[in-house]
Amino acid sequence: MTGDDRRDGGPVRIGLLGCGTVGQAVVRTIIDGGATIERASGHRLEVAKVLVRDPAKERPGIDPSLITTDPSEILDDPTVAIVVEVMGGLEPTLDHLQRAIARGASVVTANKQLLSRHGPELLQAAEAAGAELRFEASACAAIPVIKVLRESLLAADITQVTGIVNGTTNFILTEMSRAGLSYGEALARAQELGYAEADPTEDVNGADAAAKMAILSSIAFHSRVRIDDVPFEGIDLLQAEDMGHARSLGFVVKLLGVARLLNGSVSVRVYPALVPRGHRLAAIEGPDNAVLLESRATREIMLVGPGAGGDETASAVVADILSILGTHQGSFLHNALADAGRTVAPPGDVESAFYVRMAVDDRPGVLARVASIFGEAELSIRTVVQSGAGDEARLVLVLHSGPEARMAQALERIRALDEVRGEPVMLRVLGSGAGGDAR
Amino acid sequence: MTGDDRRDGGPVRIGLLGCGTVGQAVVRTIIDGGATIERASGHRLEVAKVLVRDPAKERPGIDPSLITTDPSEILDDPTVAIVVEVMGGLEPTLDHLQRAIARGASVVTANKQLLSRHGPELLQAAEAAGAELRFEASACAAIPVIKVLRESLLAADITQVTGIVNGTTNFILTEMSRAGLSYGEALARAQELGYAEADPTEDVNGADAAAKMAILSSIAFHSRVRIDDVPFEGIDLLQAEDMGHARSLGFVVKLLGVARLLNGSVSVRVYPALVPRGHRLAAIEGPDNAVLLESRATREIMLVGPGAGGDETASAVVADILSILGTHQGSFLHNALADAGRTVAPPGDVESAFYVRMAVDDRPGVLARVASIFGEAELSIRTVVQSGAGDEARLVLVLHSGPEARMAQALERIRALDEVRGEPVMLRVLGSGAGGDAR
Repeated sequence: MTGDDRRDGGPVRIGLLGCGTVGQAVVRTIIDGGATIERASGHRLEVAKVLVRDPAKERPGIDPSLITTDPSEILDDPTVAIVVEVMGGLEPTLDHLQRAIARGASVVTANKQLLSRHGPELLQAAEAAGAELRFEASACAAIPVIKVLRESLLAADITQVTGIVNGTTNFILTEMSRAGLSYGEALARAQELGYAEADPTEDVNGADAAAKMAILSSIAFHSRVRIDDVPFEGIDLLQAEDMGHARSLGFVVKLLGVARLLNGSVSVRVYPALVPRGHRLAAIEGPDNAVLLESRATREIMLVGPGAGGDETASAVVADILSILGTHQGSFLHNALADAGRTVAPPGDVESAFYVRMAVDDRPGVLARVASIFGEAELSIRTVVQSGAGDEARLVLVLHSGPEARMAQALERIRALDEVRGEPVMLRVLGSGAGGDAR
Repeated sequence: MTGDDRRDGGPVRIGLLGCGTVGQAVVRTIIDGGATIERASGHRLEVAKVLVRDPAKERPGIDPSLITTDPSEILDDPTVAIVVEVMGGLEPTLDHLQRAIARGASVVTANKQLLSRHGPELLQAAEAAGAELRFEASACAAIPVIKVLRESLLAADITQVTGIVNGTTNFILTEMSRAGLSYGEALARAQELGYAEADPTEDVNGADAAAKMAILSSIAFHSRVRIDDVPFEGIDLLQAEDMGHARSLGFVVKLLGVARLLNGSVSVRVYPALVPRGHRLAAIEGPDNAVLLESRATREIMLVGPGAGGDETASAVVADILSILGTHQGSFLHNALADAGRTVAPPGDVESAFYVRMAVDDRPGVLARVASIFGEAELSIRTVVQSGAGDEARLVLVLHSGPEARMAQALERIRALDEVRGEPVMLRVLGSGAGGDAR
């Protein structure tokens, strides 16, 4: 299906299998993001039906008339162009998808267990039926690693894929290392914060990471790797002392998925490993995921982000839908450039926190004069460091967030002071997420 | 053009404008990677003609019969489906591309200066002619940030794009910070290592980063941002002491491009900034580039990699060509899964370096016994740390790289020793790139 097939037809009808956290987020994204999606892609999406097990359950924001318990209302409805599978499990999910594909519907799935077992059959069925099968959400949620491997690095000879692809274990290892917690304490903390399930087995024993690595290595190496081909080890044998030993030897401990070519074969494994402190993957902390893609031509490209979450997974599902529909420039950039062009903000309005360094005469009253100029500009000082060197002193100030224009005026006045030597150096400070600072 | 148009036709003919480092790498990639490209995409690529200024120049690997000095042999040849522009400059480049687009040829360009000035016109011309215009290589070389913004995050409401998009300045700032070099010394070192041009003006004054940020923010915010809309400041006023002040205040200094929404308008700027030490971008060192993409649904996704280089840029150019041709699963995964499936390597063959931690009786001879078992398995010991605690001692060993199978045998023998208590913990060690170690 290309963009042109549908642009002037009716809406593209989407059937959902499953309506848990991810399913509800998909519906919300399709509804709330409708205008953006249509402007950007040229397509209007419409949720046709939503398959659930328990129709009585509360599902905020979901029109009850869309709910069904009969899979055939989605699988056999020829007006449903795309089936989104977010119900999970192997059976009856596999049957459902095969039935949808057989009648030519395209499928988007977030189901790593299913794909890492039956991916090749499903892909072949889709190919035979002229349908598309997309599964970005099955590995690392919104991090577009499958698209990058399938498309951007299609012609690159990938030599190795190394990933931190399980956020639960990365959070646990980070806590063990940072706070000296035992494995059990760190797991409890992960459960408290929602980073680990009540039954964390699949995460901590490495099986979840193995499923994701089977999918990623199949794409990266154009091969058929199934979860059974991926030996995996978990983190449950690790103790806080291993973190300490690793640190003193110059390493951090991470649960890694490692896929690489070995004499023309693909070797894919998951295990906890010592990672040198200066390595890119050593800096990935907390529940984040990261995948490092190596090839001769592109060297190391790393993708980092949240590897789980309802909205994050839904974002990948919607991206897959748009990818099936086609998002060539005709349906995207031209629209954007022609109509929706946002204006450019005048720089003076932007707010930043600031660093200012200047050389001044080392005599009393200089700091007071500088401080009062900032005060009159309503720019408040967070830190001042003053250091002398002969008759010249260095003044280093960090200021709280304020408008650029006021900083420019204050700097002009400071430059004009007799006591200020040479040109003051002003740098913005990148906020750590708090509003106001030069984010 | 979809994959099907060409799959059973002749080769897809590519015309190159320019044949410097990037152009030569593009030709090499098309020739050397031909089999991979054809298997993966279903298309055979053929270099039709290569436009150069000086035909006498040495160009290793380029068939001299392909060389021309007459642009019309590419621009006006209806058999040339895709024109790749790697000649740079604004004129006559803009005219050339408009002429190619006008006759319906698709264009792939790596020219950030041209795009950041004339991108909107070129996109509209392409749209009018039913041609594609792709430009992944124009920002951050092989890092697929444009594809991710255009496709994966198409429906995400991006709120901020923050980038380290100039490798020269990031290298200089890293050296100033790491080695306490002055700006001039660090620049000289960058030039020595090939990370800075003989005339580094465009890099160090922020203009190069501004051009890239104009392109990225146009895509991210569906807007028309031109380089003239992007105020930029460079790093040439910075001194080593600023690095020191920043460090003592808990920051590192980076040249940032910051694009964000401000009351519905787009604000895009380039400036040196203080970045909190724990921030993702603070860890990006040396000549690397990184782009942080923020939206509500996907939170922070970061892409990292080499932002320059002939092979890296060529990789992005070839990815754009394949993206124009279409790389749906029919032309990719099925081929891969059906024919080219690589076998899975037996885990025992894999080589790793190892960490082993065990509790042992604290009496003489234990270490010798353990060491001789590893010796007999031909696994050589890099580090041993022994620490006592009552009658129990801890033995932590790091071993040089060796086959998994031999480690498994050695561990079996060690487990059987009377002096070893409980289960030894074995972790692999991720190599820092040296062959052999568990990479």
